[in-house]
Amino acid sequence: MHTVFYVSDGTAITAEVFGHAVLSQFPLPFEQFSVPFVEDKEKALAVRERINHSFHQSGKQPLVFHTIVDDKVRHIITDSDAMCYDFLNTFVAPIEQQLGVKAEPRTHRTHGMDNRQHYDARIDAVNYALDNDDGVNTKEYDEADIILVGVSRCGKTPTSLYLALQFGIRVANYPFIDQDMKHLTLPPMLKANRHKLFGLTIDANRLQEIRQRRRADSRYADPEQCRYELNQIERLFRMEAIPFIDTTFHSVEEISVKILERAGIRRRIF
Amino acid sequence: MHTVFYVSDGTAITAEVFGHAVLSQFPLPFEQFSVPFVEDKEKALAVRERINHSFHQSGKQPLVFHTIVDDKVRHIITDSDAMCYDFLNTFVAPIEQQLGVKAEPRTHRTHGMDNRQHYDARIDAVNYALDNDDGVNTKEYDEADIILVGVSRCGKTPTSLYLALQFGIRVANYPFIDQDMKHLTLPPMLKANRHKLFGLTIDANRLQEIRQRRRADSRYADPEQCRYELNQIERLFRMEAIPFIDTTFHSVEEISVKILERAGIRRRIF
Repeated sequence: MHTVFYVSDGTAITAEVFGHAVLSQFPLPFEQFSVPFVEDKEKALAVRERINHSFHQSGKQPLVFHTIVDDKVRHIITDSDAMCYDFLNTFVAPIEQQLGVKAEPRTHRTHGMDNRQHYDARIDAVNYALDNDDGVNTKEYDEADIILVGVSRCGKTPTSLYLALQFGIRVANYPFIDQDMKHLTLPPMLKANRHKLFGLTIDANRLQEIRQRRRADSRYADPEQCRYELNQIERLFRMEAIPFIDTTFHSVEEISVKILERAGIRRRIF
Repeated sequence: MHTVFYVSDGTAITAEVFGHAVLSQFPLPFEQFSVPFVEDKEKALAVRERINHSFHQSGKQPLVFHTIVDDKVRHIITDSDAMCYDFLNTFVAPIEQQLGVKAEPRTHRTHGMDNRQHYDARIDAVNYALDNDDGVNTKEYDEADIILVGVSRCGKTPTSLYLALQFGIRVANYPFIDQDMKHLTLPPMLKANRHKLFGLTIDANRLQEIRQRRRADSRYADPEQCRYELNQIERLFRMEAIPFIDTTFHSVEEISVKILERAGIRRRIF
């Protein structure tokens, strides 16, 4: 199995995300290691040692995906016996040519804390999501960008948190529970914010699996109960013309981006 | 100002993160738009129209960073008048050459839900972080990978959630509050899990700013109170040899990655 090293002078998150995307196109397993904060020559020399040792051990040439600004530090890494792919600079030269502007390399570019306002917006959004999770507080819905509604455990909380952390979006969420089901209607504070509502639904078997893990062999996790709740909630979504998404086969990222697209909310990039 | 389009057949998150990293090296402002789910020719034609219109309006050639698997769909985009940068395939050919294996392109590679186990691990980690947030529950610390400790509002919750969502790490967090300060010691369940403890601290002025926004003009937000709590907590960290990080100038990503590095926990890449 080939070994892959993501080497960065920062968190290596960019290298990981991008590297993962590129490698997922290959029908091979990879052993992957992230090596962040490689900011000086000493660290770079230690990493190069590790890379070369890995080659020696496995007999297979490692891949190194790197995002390093300092030339000297980078050259120590590219001097290793691995095949090195310069994630940072490969696109810089053609962009310099297009824009007629030279790049000014700096560290902590992407996942550092350059912009205090952006950072606060994300933290505020996370606090908002937590303060308005699970219907515990219904008085701050004016401040919401989106309000997610659905049955218990269909994915509302992870989605709210992801939207907050990744995009700084303020998302409240409200659960419809067993007692609501017989006469399912939108309560006043949701009606008042109708245009912000987004429904989540899920496959009944999947819901049953998830609930069984939370509260084994309860009424809550009963297959009939799950089907009943989902039928009722989907009826409500249709009657009230609330756009909704089935979360069953989608990741948190996909659900989040679909919601933003439907709501017409432009995502901030942090 | 140049306009940048991140065009993808998926969520466009990979293109955004990577594009942002590359562009942050340029001392220029950019107007950035994400265009996800461009999966067929109709959508691609509409996007191309939008790109060309943008060029026409601004007079400045847009940049397009794209991650599209289907050749026909991709060619419609690269046929636009923008300068197009193929984020997905630029590295594929050299990697094919190194590995002697052809790529097998597929959509929903990176932020889709291919691997149910990975996905569940993240959702479970988020649930764990929420169930064990703010010291509300101290009985599940056996299951924690990490336990964050610190004063109120120093960054514990956002960090736990980020570690859960991004890396599937199980992080509990425990606050030391005003009443604890006079005789500050580690309670039994933290002592029992000493090796998992990580401290967060923060600059006193920054803490005061944050607390003032939460509870204006309270004792909680008083500058003296903030300085006192931080002094006490840092003494505890030193006395108990708990590794700690100052969160003041670091993003959630940086704090999270530093914690994983110090704890020697290998990050899973999702």
